[in-house]
Amino acid sequence: MATILTLAGDGIGPEIMTQAIDVLKAVNEKFSLDLTLESGLIGGVAIDATGEPLPDETLARARAADAVLLGAVGGPKWDTIERSKRPERGLLKIRGELGLFANLRVAKLYPQLANASSIKPEIISGLDLLIVRELTGGIYFGEPRGIRTLENGEQQGYNTMVYSTSEIQRIGKVAFELAKTRAQAAGTAAKVCSVDKANVLEVTELWKQTMIQMQQAEYSDVALSHMYADNACMQLIKDPKQFDVMVTGNMFGDILSDEAAMLTGSIGMLPSASLDEDGKGMYEPCHGSAPDIAGQDKANPLATILSVAMMLRYTFKQEEAAQAIEQAVSDVLDDGLRTLDILDSSEAGLKQVGCQEMGQAVLAKL
Amino acid sequence: MATILTLAGDGIGPEIMTQAIDVLKAVNEKFSLDLTLESGLIGGVAIDATGEPLPDETLARARAADAVLLGAVGGPKWDTIERSKRPERGLLKIRGELGLFANLRVAKLYPQLANASSIKPEIISGLDLLIVRELTGGIYFGEPRGIRTLENGEQQGYNTMVYSTSEIQRIGKVAFELAKTRAQAAGTAAKVCSVDKANVLEVTELWKQTMIQMQQAEYSDVALSHMYADNACMQLIKDPKQFDVMVTGNMFGDILSDEAAMLTGSIGMLPSASLDEDGKGMYEPCHGSAPDIAGQDKANPLATILSVAMMLRYTFKQEEAAQAIEQAVSDVLDDGLRTLDILDSSEAGLKQVGCQEMGQAVLAKL
Ligand SMILES: CC(C)[C@H](C(=O)O)[C@@H](O)C(=O)O
Ligand SMILES: CC(C)[C@H](C(=O)O)[C@@H](O)C(=O)O
Repeated sequence: MATILTLAGDGIGPEIMTQAIDVLKAVNEKFSLDLTLESGLIGGVAIDATGEPLPDETLARARAADAVLLGAVGGPKWDTIERSKRPERGLLKIRGELGLFANLRVAKLYPQLANASSIKPEIISGLDLLIVRELTGGIYFGEPRGIRTLENGEQQGYNTMVYSTSEIQRIGKVAFELAKTRAQAAGTAAKVCSVDKANVLEVTELWKQTMIQMQQAEYSDVALSHMYADNACMQLIKDPKQFDVMVTGNMFGDILSDEAAMLTGSIGMLPSASLDEDGKGMYEPCHGSAPDIAGQDKANPLATILSVAMMLRYTFKQEEAAQAIEQAVSDVLDDGLRTLDILDSSEAGLKQVGCQEMGQAVLAKL
Repeated sequence: MATILTLAGDGIGPEIMTQAIDVLKAVNEKFSLDLTLESGLIGGVAIDATGEPLPDETLARARAADAVLLGAVGGPKWDTIERSKRPERGLLKIRGELGLFANLRVAKLYPQLANASSIKPEIISGLDLLIVRELTGGIYFGEPRGIRTLENGEQQGYNTMVYSTSEIQRIGKVAFELAKTRAQAAGTAAKVCSVDKANVLEVTELWKQTMIQMQQAEYSDVALSHMYADNACMQLIKDPKQFDVMVTGNMFGDILSDEAAMLTGSIGMLPSASLDEDGKGMYEPCHGSAPDIAGQDKANPLATILSVAMMLRYTFKQEEAAQAIEQAVSDVLDDGLRTLDILDSSEAGLKQVGCQEMGQAVLAKL
């Protein structure tokens, strides 16, 4: 028996979570997974209830659980409170406290949605790219940090980007291993592109050196390339299919994974996994809490549903159940069902549906 | 009389500089500008000659000059030398020493080249966007920085992202003022989008607060918006025309300006200016030294030629001469002349030319 903690969060979080939970319950039964579901508070709703974006109780239950399924956090209501108490801090804290150092974000183009992208079809058709982002280090967590008053009376803000060899090695290992697994499945050669700014930042020079050493010592079967972050950002637009697995630090990963997601034109479809050293993980959609459409049954639940599939694959090693969900999602797209964010009004034969109808359609396919 | 120091640098630097100098000499005569040209060493060629990427003599002459025109620096030959001596360090040092804190990069779509982009035409047609990047602060110059050995024997790399109120104010001022000038010229309302990661980094929270204070105190006629860097990176792909002027720090600016350039599909066309507090500046193409095609007469000299136009506009206030160059460039594109990087082989009526033929064609138009 295993336990999953669901944290719906803010904005569209609750509605997409409702659909994902239905799907999770269905596969739980169908594949006899013996999973138990609990729910907890994070983000703005947690602030409203307890004053903290990540209450101790939630953290304790997340530690006790085998996996966490997260909706989304944040919204204008909590944008003006003191920064240590904002919803995003709850997200950063749970990542840090649970040691979820490996963030996997897949930018995959669903052929049914090829037109949704602002990129020309030939550039992105067949795109399936994995970004491995370090999630508990770098400038997100580095000390010292803060805002101080200088002697001349003006203010100065400062943050520290820091990585040690062992932090780089453990995320490098995830990237190299996943590149091998993906290559095996696809029948191609394994390759990893490590993104840095080694021509300017010493911390990323250590990053680059460490990747090179790992490749030479342990992963000579994986082709390793290096790219500066600015160039990577350009190459993703010019020719994203040149990449298979990209690995980078917390901040570059934040930027590049969002960019890669937007290439597909349908960020409402993209799941993510954040894993610790033992494969325990937190799973969440790549999109945010979309407060502007919250509570209107307009949200796309598919990224959260696909996050359930990732959870079954990575934490519970239930590949068959994971694929069943992914197939069901693909099937509803084939049927022409579209939430507003992925609706192409110039295409015939599509049916606009709400969050609930989309979720229930996936459920029916299972 | 004013003096311009030309620094051709490495790779394709010398060949594009030769063409730009021809153009500069022609407008100098035509508009009686009384400009004197000198040349100096920077980057790899400077390392080869003196052991330093920015020799003292070059720095002294750059200080004495009224403007600097730079080609490009760097190449594989110098990639393995000790990092404090690499070509890029020469570039960073000249920016820092001359106080060139305001980097202006325009991402403009030439209608003749609309097909070169990987973005759909309707998304980028008419794109003309200015990125104002802080260039002498932030994590590029912040201390402490380095790689140290920890007590447990492993290594740790670290850099510091730091901005003070006055640094933010002076770059903010440049952005607000340029937004007003651009709006006046275009007959539109002035707007600035400030890019930060204030939900995570304290240093960029100070950035955001400072921008807000400036807008309220001095620029209530400019609409100010804020965007997180990850979202900005997405929005540039989804709908770049929502922006007019973007302002951000050194590192986000490095990434976003390259991304914006790539949206046009023709980074070989894009010039940049790096200005100090008195409008003195260094001008250079946005592209790099392209060692793979160096010395083969394949490079596109237009970005360097357009950098000359920027120099005439910003440092010498010679708007007429600047526009004459820009018109000449547009004319040669109308004539169908294309260097390899901007050649669309599916389009009829184009003529592939080399670096020299392209430069001389611009010259003939003047
Ligand atoms: C909300 C924010 C703190 C977060 C991040 O920057 O990591 C988000 O952008 C993400 O990528 O999950
Ligand atoms: C070459 C490098 C140091 C430089 C930078 O990062 O500033 C370049 O990418 C640029 O944008 O001019």
